[in-house]
Order: sequence, then C-alpha cells, then structure tokens
Amino acid sequence: MGKLLIVGTVAFDAIETPFGKTDKILGGAATFIGLAASQFKVDSGLISVVGGDFPNEYLEMLADRNIDISGVEVIKEGKTFFWSGKYDYNLNTRETLATDLNVLADFNPVVPDNYMDCDFLMLGNLHPSVQMAVINQIPNRPKLVVLDTMNFWMDNTLDELMEVLPKIDVITINDEEARQLSGEYSLVKAAQKIHKMGPQYVVIKKGENGALLFNNGDVFFAPALPLEEIFDPTGAGDTFAGGFIGYLASTHDVSFENMKRAVIYGSNFASFCVERFGTERMIDLDQEEIQKRLGQFKQLTQFEIELTH
Amino acid sequence: MGKLLIVGTVAFDAIETPFGKTDKILGGAATFIGLAASQFKVDSGLISVVGGDFPNEYLEMLADRNIDISGVEVIKEGKTFFWSGKYDYNLNTRETLATDLNVLADFNPVVPDNYMDCDFLMLGNLHPSVQMAVINQIPNRPKLVVLDTMNFWMDNTLDELMEVLPKIDVITINDEEARQLSGEYSLVKAAQKIHKMGPQYVVIKKGENGALLFNNGDVFFAPALPLEEIFDPTGAGDTFAGGFIGYLASTHDVSFENMKRAVIYGSNFASFCVERFGTERMIDLDQEEIQKRLGQFKQLTQFEIELTH
Repeated sequence: MGKLLIVGTVAFDAIETPFGKTDKILGGAATFIGLAASQFKVDSGLISVVGGDFPNEYLEMLADRNIDISGVEVIKEGKTFFWSGKYDYNLNTRETLATDLNVLADFNPVVPDNYMDCDFLMLGNLHPSVQMAVINQIPNRPKLVVLDTMNFWMDNTLDELMEVLPKIDVITINDEEARQLSGEYSLVKAAQKIHKMGPQYVVIKKGENGALLFNNGDVFFAPALPLEEIFDPTGAGDTFAGGFIGYLASTHDVSFENMKRAVIYGSNFASFCVERFGTERMIDLDQEEIQKRLGQFKQLTQFEIELTH
Repeated sequence: MGKLLIVGTVAFDAIETPFGKTDKILGGAATFIGLAASQFKVDSGLISVVGGDFPNEYLEMLADRNIDISGVEVIKEGKTFFWSGKYDYNLNTRETLATDLNVLADFNPVVPDNYMDCDFLMLGNLHPSVQMAVINQIPNRPKLVVLDTMNFWMDNTLDELMEVLPKIDVITINDEEARQLSGEYSLVKAAQKIHKMGPQYVVIKKGENGALLFNNGDVFFAPALPLEEIFDPTGAGDTFAGGFIGYLASTHDVSFENMKRAVIYGSNFASFCVERFGTERMIDLDQEEIQKRLGQFKQLTQFEIELTH
C-alpha cells in the first residue's frame, strides 16, 4: 500500500444546474479527490487551506474517512475559497458566476513531515507555481506524480505550467485543454506532443464521453456509463482523478495494465459523483454499489469477435 | 447470407474541411452504405435516383463491387442531387452551403422484383414518406429494418416520421437528434422513449465519441478509434450504418450479441471513412486493414478487473 499525498482546494461551491440549485456546499478539488481515494485502503493526507468560516464538521467528516487533515491550514481571520457556477441544459458547458479566492490567494502549501516520503503525489488543479512548490519540498521523487490542470492556467501561466510538466508522470486534462496545450486537433497527436513536454502518461477526460489513457503509442479508452440521472457534473473530474490515484496507491502498481483498471475506477466513481449535488453521492457510496457498477462497466464494452487475419 | 436492400441518395458532394477542399465528388447515403456493406459477401441492391450528369463510371464502380444497381433510376434530363458543406475546426459541426435536390425532389422509389423478398432493409436518411413508400411495397416484413434519419425530418416532417417508426426495428441517429426526438437529456431515458415509438433497437452515433446500442434495458458501447488523421467526416454515419447492416446480413443473425459485433464493424469502417475525402478511403479498403483495426478496437477497451462482490 502506498502513501498518498493530495494537494488541492477545499472550498465552498454554489451550483445551479437545469435540475436544481444549491447554497454554499462543500466542494474543492482536494475534497473530491480525497473522498474518492478514501474508498481504497490507502494512507492519504491533504494539503489545503480554509478560512475561519469553514465548518469543523466537514474537516471531521474527512478525518473520519482516514484522510489525514494535519496539512489543512485554517486561517481563522480569512474566508474559504468560494466558487459559483451555472450549467447549461447541455451539462458539458458551464458559466462561472463567482470565483472568490479568499485564503487561496496566498496559499503557501507545506508538506507535513510524515508525508515527505509519500509514494504517490496528486497535484490537484491549482496555480502551477503552487504545484511546483509541493514537488520541491519532497526530497525523493515519489513513485508516481499526477497533475490535474485546466485551460485557465494555460491561458495565464503557461510558462510556469511548462516548468512543472517535466517533473510529473501523469497529466489529466479534458479534450479541449489537450488540443489547446498541444495545438493539435487529433487527440492522438495531442498526446504525442504532450508526452514530449514531460508526462509519460496523458489522461484525456471527455466527461459523458469517457476518458482516454495514452502512454507512448499505447492507448486505452474507458467509457462513461450511460446514466438515467445526470444531476451535477461538479467534481466529476476530481473524483475521477481521486479514483485513479487511489487505486494505484492501494495496489502500488503503476504498470499500464493496472493504469487501465485505475481509469475504470476513476470513471466508475465519477459516474456516481454526477448523480447528486456536490459531494453528496460520494459520501454515502459503499463498496457493494461500486462493485456492481464495475460489472456494468465491464459489460458495456465487452464483445467477442473472430479475427481472420 | 441475407439479401440486403438499400434505399438512399446517390449524390455529388462538395466539401470543405480545415484540411482541404473538393469540387463535386461522389457522395450520397446509399453510396456510402453500399460501399461499406459490399465489404461483406452479401447480395445487396440499391434504390436511388440520379440525373443525366451522373458519370457512368461511378455506377460501374458500384456494380463491380457486386452491388445491384438495377434500382438506380437515371433521369436523363435531370440533374443529380448536390450537397455542399463546410466543416469547422471542430469537425463535429458543419455548415450546409447548398442543397440542390434536383431529381431527388420527385424521387419515387420502386423496389426491383428480385428484392421484394429482401431479408434486410436499410432505409437511408430521406424524407420519411419515401422511406414508408419502400416499406409498403415489400409484401413480407423483412427480418430486420434499419432506418437512419436526422433532425431536418424531426423539424419538418415529424408526423410522417412517427408513422414510419413502428414499422422498423433499428433507428440510427446522433445524440442531439435522440435528445430532440425524445425530449430527454439522458441518452438512457431518450432510448427508453424511442423504444416506445417503435424501434426495439436504438443506435446513438456520437461521431468521434463512439456509438451506443440500446435494446430495452441492455446497452453496449462501441468506442471510436482515436485517429491521427481525421480528414473529412462526410459519410461516416452512413458508412457506420452500412457496416452495421452489412455484417448482420452476411451473418443472418440479429441477436443482441451479434448486433454488438455489427456496431464494432460499423465503427471500424467509419474510422477509415474519415481518413480521406468522401468515398476515397472506402474504395481502396482491404480485408487485411479491416482485420488489423478490429484488433485495435478490441485492445482499446479491454481490461481485466476482479469483482469482489
């Protein structure tokens, strides 16, 4: 079993979808990643920052799931990062209504002593300089470093992002971001170019259209499960990443074959995440449901065909 | 081996993509369907109409592939149906520049005597009344009737379309059309509603995002192969349909398990179609290439996972 360190936001989200609306609820990349990874028996710790307004019960909920929260700094006089967004009827596009950085503006991540020897490092979507600051504190390179990022950092901090990429093993981005980062329309070519920027593994998330895993010529596709209810996509990408790295950390195996399974676990967890608002579904998820759905994932793409050449 | 009858357009297309531009080239739904189906040893006939301007060499090329063209009416004084379109950088969206119906405006399909006993009927994308006219001429219901349609007919001839749907077995449409026809965002719910309109099988084509096959609760997903070159999507949906019904006709097996393989063959052929302009790639395609790519399709989604519940 590997030791997993997660850095990312812990936040309040206010979400509007065609199906409903929430006030401030628990959100943030590290929250979703941590909750997903905690489904596996893995020693995981969070690095994040919240304000004095952050309810203690949320931190306790995370701690109850064996997530080490000693790296979550609480700035009493500050306010917690707040994001608000509204999704179209087409849940793939969303409008950001508010991004109040608050305590995140001066986030100075500090790796706790007992995670200096982490085997798996998950860099959630954050300013690339913050991601770099975490990498630089860890004396020995972990077995696997996974980085999530987004178009905002490509637009505004591309140089800093390009400096981090050689130091990571896996990048997770969506299809439009892969095209933006590489300047290639074909995702095959995009992955080839991104490999050259550093990461040996490129995971391209396509939401309801599944996810692709590239590794220098090898490619694997995990479908998204067609769902009756798609309620709120917030956190699905982070949940995917948490399932992915959580599975890898729990099996301590970073072979391509095992990464395929990790991508399936990520897709599996993400399919639950979108069924309710925010973290709701991930919090009451159990192993029986997960295993049942894994069977559905297996069924979904399974076919027998005879090759004649 | 089943006898396959195909009705649809045979046309001229002029296409502009980010990668190039063509003058009038061979196109039309029935052309793409016929070329795809001709990869299998199947007795197939086309019903269509062209003008006096249609080159005889195109008809000969189809005949050379064992496609019976006795049902293709040539109206000497008329002009062939012409479509022109321009694709965005995002090849999933296109602008129609011209649609000159010409001889298609008065298309009166006549089923040739030797196809009155067809086992498989493919109704290419056309006015639903034309599709119905073909169904009505066939005395005994074929083993399988597949219908392709599009949003244009949902917008303009919905009543006629709704009359045809109870008479068919399989509908092939894209995801947006499935949502439009059903009024449901979830494709699972959309398929449920479309089943109630008639077709027991609903195939939802998602272009570069693969295809879903629904059959009253069962679902199968065929990925699209990630390609280095995506050159021109014209005809990909028709090629998919031709591969699908061609495989079913050649195996004479309409079980769900066999339909999965048919969807894979359809996706396989479509992946070739998009690599060049129009019918170019389909015309010089050989069995070795097809079989090699089938192996890639199998690899793409294959994973081993242990279920613990």
